[in-house]
Amino acid sequence: MKRGLENIRVVLCRTSHPGNIGAAARAMKTMGLSRLHLVSPKYFPHSDATARASGAEDILDQAVVSATLDQALEGTVLAVAVTARRRDLSHEVHDPRETAGMLLGEAESGEVALVFGTEMSGLTTEEVGKCTLISTIPANPVYSSLNLASAVQIMAYELWTANAPEKNSVREGELATFEEIEHFYRHLEETMIRTGFLDPEEPKRLMQRMRRLFSRSRLEKNEINILRGILSSLENGARHV
Amino acid sequence: MKRGLENIRVVLCRTSHPGNIGAAARAMKTMGLSRLHLVSPKYFPHSDATARASGAEDILDQAVVSATLDQALEGTVLAVAVTARRRDLSHEVHDPRETAGMLLGEAESGEVALVFGTEMSGLTTEEVGKCTLISTIPANPVYSSLNLASAVQIMAYELWTANAPEKNSVREGELATFEEIEHFYRHLEETMIRTGFLDPEEPKRLMQRMRRLFSRSRLEKNEINILRGILSSLENGARHV
Repeated sequence: MKRGLENIRVVLCRTSHPGNIGAAARAMKTMGLSRLHLVSPKYFPHSDATARASGAEDILDQAVVSATLDQALEGTVLAVAVTARRRDLSHEVHDPRETAGMLLGEAESGEVALVFGTEMSGLTTEEVGKCTLISTIPANPVYSSLNLASAVQIMAYELWTANAPEKNSVREGELATFEEIEHFYRHLEETMIRTGFLDPEEPKRLMQRMRRLFSRSRLEKNEINILRGILSSLENGARHV
Repeated sequence: MKRGLENIRVVLCRTSHPGNIGAAARAMKTMGLSRLHLVSPKYFPHSDATARASGAEDILDQAVVSATLDQALEGTVLAVAVTARRRDLSHEVHDPRETAGMLLGEAESGEVALVFGTEMSGLTTEEVGKCTLISTIPANPVYSSLNLASAVQIMAYELWTANAPEKNSVREGELATFEEIEHFYRHLEETMIRTGFLDPEEPKRLMQRMRRLFSRSRLEKNEINILRGILSSLENGARHV
């Protein structure tokens, strides 16, 4: 899976402030991204870029500078325009989490790109037109002015999180399979029917609600075992008391 | 629900570079946060802070400067230390997504805080000790050096995303409060002890595992009611069978 991040380019178009290029490189490196493309940056290389990179100078050293977005996108199979502005509906719009999933899926077999515009005005309509789809970072509608490196940081964070579920403190154990989860739901339903909590004649969407709750938490194998153990112990309690 | 964000303080401890204070204010404002607390900043106010705030000067104007972290945390019911360093296991560690859910749950009824350390060395052990739990942003283990404002941006983004359920297809009902969730855990624990599934002499982290599971799904009020209803019906079943 880690291979995926290596196939992801971050493309910065016509960046005005070299400090932002350095800060973007740092944001990339913290989340395992390394391939920076700069489309006609105003100043690069520049001491401000190096200063703000703060340990991510290797990303700047390997950055590819090109004159046009076309050149930066050469060889890619998917290019995502990151933009806050509303466009006409010629492109699909996705949030960063969805975008991360799509990019990683494609990056397993090909080169993909995340494309960012200038600090002041973002991407032009023409630049967006060269991309496959749009990603918009949800933000405060009365002040959605994310710093360029902050936008890179959020997208990179979503990529890292999506790509490294094992690194995520939340995930400790192996995920349960579909069959294991269905067994648990059946066990839960039978138990609720037996105690009279669930009336099969008038189920009131109880099981749908339970499915919605547990599907949000993405159950692990050991959690299924514990939950089923609790149900069994309650049934045994019911028999023995 | 939007009210939650107003009860969330961002506390920056002993910040060295005023530019980072401005950038943090900007990051906050993009995600609807407004309450900045500064614990003995090296320089503040400062032209670098104003320059980097870039439209979020109102956050700087309203910032509360205090001499100690204790003062900045006065009146809060939950304080989260954001730190990358591994600590001993005196605190629960959560990722930003879980943390956002917990903070918003608490922020519905009280004041909460996200606490960030210095650019170079983060929070001291003493500062972490004043917080309720730890949140760690998942990052590249060989280079996890997030810029301070970037860390603020990620946490704020997770809060905004979690707080905008209308944008999220998953969320249907009102979130349960901290107290409601704690009552459920107590109910679950008592039931498991009664049936013998949980041995209070050898609890085997059963309750921690259940807390981890349910905190991932961010329980809603009606779900708590159903879960507690199931537990009650099983107990009644146990008495009546």
